[in-house]
Amino acid sequence: MKIFVVNAGSSSLKYQLIDMENEQVLCKGLCERIGVEGSCISHKSADGKVYETETPMPTHSEAFQSVVFAMTKSDAKVIDSFDDISAIGHRIVQGGSIFKGSCIITPEALNDIEELGALAPLHNPAHVLAIKACIETFGSEKPQVAVFDTSFHQTMPAKAYMFPIPYKYFTDYKVRKYGAHGTSHNFVSSRCAEIMDKDIKDLKIITCHLGNGCSITAVKGGECIDTSMGFTPLDGFMMGTRTGTLDPSAITFIAEKENLSPADLNRIFNKESGVLGVSGVSNDNRDVVAAAKEGNERAQLAIDMQRYQIAKFIGSYVAAMNGVDAIVFTGGIGENDAALRAEVCGYLTYLGITVDTDKNALRGENKITTDDSRVSVYVIPTNEELAIARDTLALVK
Amino acid sequence: MKIFVVNAGSSSLKYQLIDMENEQVLCKGLCERIGVEGSCISHKSADGKVYETETPMPTHSEAFQSVVFAMTKSDAKVIDSFDDISAIGHRIVQGGSIFKGSCIITPEALNDIEELGALAPLHNPAHVLAIKACIETFGSEKPQVAVFDTSFHQTMPAKAYMFPIPYKYFTDYKVRKYGAHGTSHNFVSSRCAEIMDKDIKDLKIITCHLGNGCSITAVKGGECIDTSMGFTPLDGFMMGTRTGTLDPSAITFIAEKENLSPADLNRIFNKESGVLGVSGVSNDNRDVVAAAKEGNERAQLAIDMQRYQIAKFIGSYVAAMNGVDAIVFTGGIGENDAALRAEVCGYLTYLGITVDTDKNALRGENKITTDDSRVSVYVIPTNEELAIARDTLALVK
Repeated sequence: MKIFVVNAGSSSLKYQLIDMENEQVLCKGLCERIGVEGSCISHKSADGKVYETETPMPTHSEAFQSVVFAMTKSDAKVIDSFDDISAIGHRIVQGGSIFKGSCIITPEALNDIEELGALAPLHNPAHVLAIKACIETFGSEKPQVAVFDTSFHQTMPAKAYMFPIPYKYFTDYKVRKYGAHGTSHNFVSSRCAEIMDKDIKDLKIITCHLGNGCSITAVKGGECIDTSMGFTPLDGFMMGTRTGTLDPSAITFIAEKENLSPADLNRIFNKESGVLGVSGVSNDNRDVVAAAKEGNERAQLAIDMQRYQIAKFIGSYVAAMNGVDAIVFTGGIGENDAALRAEVCGYLTYLGITVDTDKNALRGENKITTDDSRVSVYVIPTNEELAIARDTLALVK
Repeated sequence: MKIFVVNAGSSSLKYQLIDMENEQVLCKGLCERIGVEGSCISHKSADGKVYETETPMPTHSEAFQSVVFAMTKSDAKVIDSFDDISAIGHRIVQGGSIFKGSCIITPEALNDIEELGALAPLHNPAHVLAIKACIETFGSEKPQVAVFDTSFHQTMPAKAYMFPIPYKYFTDYKVRKYGAHGTSHNFVSSRCAEIMDKDIKDLKIITCHLGNGCSITAVKGGECIDTSMGFTPLDGFMMGTRTGTLDPSAITFIAEKENLSPADLNRIFNKESGVLGVSGVSNDNRDVVAAAKEGNERAQLAIDMQRYQIAKFIGSYVAAMNGVDAIVFTGGIGENDAALRAEVCGYLTYLGITVDTDKNALRGENKITTDDSRVSVYVIPTNEELAIARDTLALVK
């Protein structure tokens, strides 16, 4: 069975085709500038062939037609016909309180996803466009599955997901913590239990997804009991360009001083803050580490702040679960920044964590603590596309 | 030596007179409605005599004149003349980055306190009025000392006090974490080391000041290395009516939906949120606990949230200090709510904390953990007035 995994934005379309016999990626690609001048597709097959072209994509429908051409007719083709594909799995950013797991996309589900656009105006409407374009391109018979960034977090108790604001904002507007990166936290926590050869029901795991966006989740008995991202993926701790949680009085003070609208604040706190805002160098971790090495004090401060905040979040989730058995690092930074991992773990030796410096320097999936470390720390590369494909397969089987 | 301790608000004046020979309070009182209709003073001597009267107080000067009358001439008089008083100690809310400790109030210091009003518009201007009224009433020869809520927190490293926002807001407006309740955190952490009969330099202490406002501080080697209140006392975790830290996107979302100004948001997050906002019952912990016992689910939720957030904050500061030797509860709630203490400690048994239920039920200063508890937990009544008097005495001696 082959599963087509789709991650659609308002002007972009990322995809993979995965053969579920062996869970291998057959091809992957990206359509960009959908709806604007200069639309293009960049497609690559597993054996290294590339198909790239600029072609008009006024809507997601033309983008999917380009993908079909790339997959079935281009020099980098991997299948003969889209009939070879069993189902389509969509990454959906916001599932609200409605979707507690992945689901087949029925007209009702599509309607719900559309209505949840109120909570994710930049994402859900784009997902809906992509789902409708799939129906148009592949027919309504081709099963489509929605896999939500939020659904893994739906097991959080109210004490974790409610905000300490007037209750009416919850009842009127559904303002609460939803979390994000759920597919990744689910994937790496399951894999962690597998590596440990233990039943996940018996484990307390803290998963740190550190990439451009960063979130940390407390997974107790296989269920999320708390997560750092909140109403949107702005919450939590310092990221590349995002603030994470803030003192509300700092926000209103700045808004008054600079006469900023909510939209201005959203832009500043999402795009101009975090590691970029403090360092003034870059939102890319590698650039900032390099600048700090050359003596840039603000770059060093940004690095110190982020690592310190990660350590504090882990500490808070150890309290939330009253203990921890394993900590997992994943995502672009989590998988590649050994110095960050070492420094974060350095705050946590009170838990009996002892990092094995040699193992921490390795690439790929690894336990980075010594065998006598009381808490095991792992690097586990995440694979959200595979997780989406697995959920899709399970639902259409 | 007798020290007059003053805590002035814009329309109120709280005071105590403390005899530093034995650190006993000779009298205490409160002037209310200064500058408005119906000004009154309520004064009580240590031997239980009361003097209460309504008298015009157009400014803080008349309030101080009433206090002088109450202390020296009323039926509840405790001294013959204000000449018996050696010095005046003022509680000052905001000392910014300027005041790293208490200080004699020189004209320059007074000017700095006034300028810091930009960061504490509700408090510092009132303190300045009170200081000037003291000069008017008692003469410029009477030594006055400023004791800042923030100065204990000035030892925080930049990684703890900087916000992950564009750096210009720090340089242009001094937006950073200053903390609050510093006098209390300093007082109870010092007392904790004393009770433990250890040098505070060797201790990692987490102090939880839980009252109407709540803050938690990590005290390492006697110095604050992190604290939960931030730019203002709104930051941190859920309080009686305050939110604590929030997802900025929840703020901008609500602001847009309800067309709220920064001033509206400030009011809502300071006065209508927290335990009151979630429970819909009260900002008074005791009312909310009572409502929860009668089955009010939102009251129970508010209680669960606050205790959970306190536990998580403690957990994060254990990570910040890489361990903890003692935890201290103080403030109205911290000193009196045994159930809260038990529940918070219940999250922390991974630290080797074992609460002694009998000791936890006692009133006053107590160790509430068993002798074999790996971390000791204390209840230590705070005494900010005494701390102010001690600093004042030390500086004028």
